[in-house]
Amino acid sequence: MDEQRLIQTITSEILKRLQGEAIGQNTGGPLLGSGYRVPMDTKELAQYIDHTMLKPDAVTATFDQLCSEAVQYRFKSVCVNSSWVPYVAKKLQGTSVRVCSVVGFPLGTMTSRSKAFETREAIEHGASEIDMVLAIGKLKAREYAYVEEDILAVRRATRSNTILKVIIETSMLTQEEKVLACQLAKRAGANFVKTSTGFGGGGATVEDIALMKSVVGKDMEVKASGGVRDYDKAMAMIGAGATRIGAVSSVAIVTGSRGTGSY
Amino acid sequence: MDEQRLIQTITSEILKRLQGEAIGQNTGGPLLGSGYRVPMDTKELAQYIDHTMLKPDAVTATFDQLCSEAVQYRFKSVCVNSSWVPYVAKKLQGTSVRVCSVVGFPLGTMTSRSKAFETREAIEHGASEIDMVLAIGKLKAREYAYVEEDILAVRRATRSNTILKVIIETSMLTQEEKVLACQLAKRAGANFVKTSTGFGGGGATVEDIALMKSVVGKDMEVKASGGVRDYDKAMAMIGAGATRIGAVSSVAIVTGSRGTGSY
Repeated sequence: MDEQRLIQTITSEILKRLQGEAIGQNTGGPLLGSGYRVPMDTKELAQYIDHTMLKPDAVTATFDQLCSEAVQYRFKSVCVNSSWVPYVAKKLQGTSVRVCSVVGFPLGTMTSRSKAFETREAIEHGASEIDMVLAIGKLKAREYAYVEEDILAVRRATRSNTILKVIIETSMLTQEEKVLACQLAKRAGANFVKTSTGFGGGGATVEDIALMKSVVGKDMEVKASGGVRDYDKAMAMIGAGATRIGAVSSVAIVTGSRGTGSY
Repeated sequence: MDEQRLIQTITSEILKRLQGEAIGQNTGGPLLGSGYRVPMDTKELAQYIDHTMLKPDAVTATFDQLCSEAVQYRFKSVCVNSSWVPYVAKKLQGTSVRVCSVVGFPLGTMTSRSKAFETREAIEHGASEIDMVLAIGKLKAREYAYVEEDILAVRRATRSNTILKVIIETSMLTQEEKVLACQLAKRAGANFVKTSTGFGGGGATVEDIALMKSVVGKDMEVKASGGVRDYDKAMAMIGAGATRIGAVSSVAIVTGSRGTGSY
């Protein structure tokens, strides 16, 4: 109970300060040009991008293309569902492209032990980044200990050098819940908070990135995902504090063409 | 390779016969009134229904209501995501309402071993029915051995009296793929094939139920889910061969009021 009160006090305080400092000032493009380092060129920009394919009906040929694009444009990683990790890991062997697996995706409603198991297997199969979905309903039910323990269960299943991202599904959360989700992810030792699954409606917004970055501070990073389909939107996210972009239209982002993906 | 040819030959044969017998005759409401037993009254109808709540942001109070409605109307089961199984199992202790857990839900894209792990845990927590999602992309990639082995992995994780349903996500499949999915589920020892997750667009149709029932025959059952929101639609599904209905609007179905759920 004390812990809960503490969390809520901190939350209110952060929200109050954010209203005063960033969002409330309404300077147009909140926090843009706020000092975040932006990539110098498209080659550097590519290193911000998780090239992503999460559709349930995607077939082998789609993952072949995903991997060859990732190698060609030097994206940071390919991001796939766990059953495709062995395949893409083999494809990408000997390249610098990392393998990222989603876990508990996209609802975040499977048991913590199942999330941990899926994580362990993805890592054994070659994943070095894990994008897990938060226990959204438990957060809404104010079961904060459960939510933190759920992330911790996955953190414990990773290796020390595994990048762990926690998808908070911003479209389903209130402002207060977004802040709480970021705090819980930080406490549990995640490396990133990430906005969206791309399956829950909504997607990354400059406001949410700014909010999330303000909460997690400089020791943790923010990934923008959901609806980031072109160069301008990607740069807006980076300007707001994102250091990773999840996208289907990654090639469009780095080449300046128009993206078609829905993610 | 021989196995693959065999499956395709059988599939073509079944599709050909179905066209001749049921769908091609165009008698209006194919297979309706075709001799399937229909429930005598709403009390009996309730025993066809899995009362369902799968939304990621559903909170404890929602599951309280789900369980008390299930007890009041004597639904066959409550169907939830695996992290809610312990809670609803405790709530339903001492009642005749069964606990059904979805697995690998809703994309079906996690590894077979992770699906098996989630199954084992759900059963330990009190589930006696498992609704797993088929490896849709692997089916589309014609990796039939993978798809069958994926179902088998879950089947092996269940107890002998656990009801296993395989969600084939009809909205994403061709006619041929629907037939193949049913055959593979049958070969792997599932008890039911089920139309939809409710998250993949589309939902149960009379045509799909009739097709699925024709393929699996009398030793296996068919569950209609996705968009079954009122009495008439439920009865149409049963008339086409369904013996289980997955619904959010279960109370509306048995009381004749108008349903509101999207599942």
